Amino acid sequence: MEFKYPIKTRAVWWERDQVCWIDTRRLPFEEVIVCTSDPGRMAKAIIDMEVRGAPAIGVAAALAVAAYARSIEDRSLSEFVEHVNKAIDMLWRTRPTAHNLFWALKRIRNKLDKAKRTASSSAEAAKALVDEALKIMREDIEANIRLGEYGARLIEDGDVILIHCNAGALATAAFGTVGGILRVAWYQGKRIKVITTETRPVLQGARLNTWEYTREGIPVTLITDNAAAYIIRKGLVNKVLVGADRITREGYVVNKIGTYGIALAAKRHNIPFYVAAPTSTIDLESSIDDVVIEERDPEEVRRVLGKYLITMPDIPVINYAFDVTDPDLVTAIITEKGIVYPPYQENLRKIIGS
Amino acid sequence: MEFKYPIKTRAVWWERDQVCWIDTRRLPFEEVIVCTSDPGRMAKAIIDMEVRGAPAIGVAAALAVAAYARSIEDRSLSEFVEHVNKAIDMLWRTRPTAHNLFWALKRIRNKLDKAKRTASSSAEAAKALVDEALKIMREDIEANIRLGEYGARLIEDGDVILIHCNAGALATAAFGTVGGILRVAWYQGKRIKVITTETRPVLQGARLNTWEYTREGIPVTLITDNAAAYIIRKGLVNKVLVGADRITREGYVVNKIGTYGIALAAKRHNIPFYVAAPTSTIDLESSIDDVVIEERDPEEVRRVLGKYLITMPDIPVINYAFDVTDPDLVTAIITEKGIVYPPYQENLRKIIGS
Repeated sequence: MEFKYPIKTRAVWWERDQVCWIDTRRLPFEEVIVCTSDPGRMAKAIIDMEVRGAPAIGVAAALAVAAYARSIEDRSLSEFVEHVNKAIDMLWRTRPTAHNLFWALKRIRNKLDKAKRTASSSAEAAKALVDEALKIMREDIEANIRLGEYGARLIEDGDVILIHCNAGALATAAFGTVGGILRVAWYQGKRIKVITTETRPVLQGARLNTWEYTREGIPVTLITDNAAAYIIRKGLVNKVLVGADRITREGYVVNKIGTYGIALAAKRHNIPFYVAAPTSTIDLESSIDDVVIEERDPEEVRRVLGKYLITMPDIPVINYAFDVTDPDLVTAIITEKGIVYPPYQENLRKIIGS
Repeated sequence: MEFKYPIKTRAVWWERDQVCWIDTRRLPFEEVIVCTSDPGRMAKAIIDMEVRGAPAIGVAAALAVAAYARSIEDRSLSEFVEHVNKAIDMLWRTRPTAHNLFWALKRIRNKLDKAKRTASSSAEAAKALVDEALKIMREDIEANIRLGEYGARLIEDGDVILIHCNAGALATAAFGTVGGILRVAWYQGKRIKVITTETRPVLQGARLNTWEYTREGIPVTLITDNAAAYIIRKGLVNKVLVGADRITREGYVVNKIGTYGIALAAKRHNIPFYVAAPTSTIDLESSIDDVVIEERDPEEVRRVLGKYLITMPDIPVINYAFDVTDPDLVTAIITEKGIVYPPYQENLRKIIGS
């Protein structure tokens, strides 16, 4: 596949009729690449967070079904359809709240249903599934590029940009949302620098952002999460750029825990606080009152890298995975359809309808 | 020594003519107690941060000189004075910016100078040094108790209090400043709960606060640093209580990195933000423009517990040990002489003069 910009880092891709991914849990210590045609192996990869980030998961699941389909294309069509349907069902159950996962698997299932009626062979049906999965992957990357181009308009030469968690290539098929903006700005020749929080408890900043942006050549500096407000106070960054897991119709931004505190500091010191999010993240059906923040395993906080105990073994923990940032703290929301400014209640509706 | 309240946890103490301390680096995993009469061993303990927290360091150094003095009290007076002076010099050089250290060693040196002129034996001189060191320790604990009693007036039954870093018994000879307030409130029968940040990079919250307050019986819950703002937003705490390393004449509070971000969130959600600090922390000579924030070893951020690498080995790091909180974010400053409210420029001067 050819794209407008070089694609140096991929979270998940298609290679010799298999789906391949980089195991993000082992970054930046080891670059472990896994390829498979076994949908059970991909289910494990999603459950164990070898692949993480909603868009990356959706693409990975679609490619996994396609690879499996190709591997059994010598079976009878009825047997083929039965087995592929089972694979879709299994992948569907891996992450109960991953909208992109369901959306991608629905697209694959629709193609399968169509092939069941019209295909003359399993090989023809498999080809249709592979084409659809590759299309899902291409669309994700192209949307990130468009989002990146919109966002890069807001980035100036010499900017130092604070980021939090990983919304880069490693959270999508490639290029990323926050990552897309940074990349386009970089390819445009803007000499930007990035400061990333470490992003406890899972350390996506320390592990993934450092690796991903160093690989791209973009200078990246690491801070502890609790240094963000002081870094902003000292004027060491002049913009904040974060991703989003969900945006409500009023413009409340649900994103990785820690986002809200950064937004408060950005507001206090009058620097822009930008949110990069594909329009699929904007949920016009949901209000802030509907948002339930996931609480995750206390062991994530008690340990580091899933291994090393840093506190008393049984200490009570509160471990919200995400927080909520109020619309008044958000300077703009950057999507693949354009940049949305306040009032969000009105303008989010417009961009979705556009 | 008898005090008004039970002293369950000590950072440093006197036992059988030796100075003893708990190695805070190994808490909460191991309770390692070390006792010595060797001032070189104490110098190492201070440099390596086995003993940390400005008041604790001052008391530890004074007790170490006293223990050494007692161990060489059979020497001639002139030899005794020469050796003790050398021990003081060595301890003086352990931490270049620790005001409490110099202040405590000066008091010991004054006693030594006096003994040199008036004592009839080394044993008599040694006794004078031991008495002075024990007095320094007693004064520290009594000041913390007074500070605790003032602060406890602000604490109500049922309060859930957010704390950051350790300003507890483990940062003083005993009882603590923030720890003093929590303890007095607890002994008064107020059913308080504590939520502590983990306090990266050195994890004083995760390691020391959990251990110290669990030992006291006070319920303590652990969060990541980046969860503080959201915990406040959700109303899960109703007061913030932090220590201070230095307070300028205008009321700017220099404290552990992360304090500023918590103060911003407390302000946004209108909950009190209290600072517990002995008057020795208030520096009427210094203005915010004079404050230089210490930048520490990048390895503190790249690793956890001084061992486990969490990022790329050579990634650039910014590691400010402290940050600055503006006076307008501080509800009150609690000292051993009373509670100081704004305007701080005026009222800090008054309390120091009182």
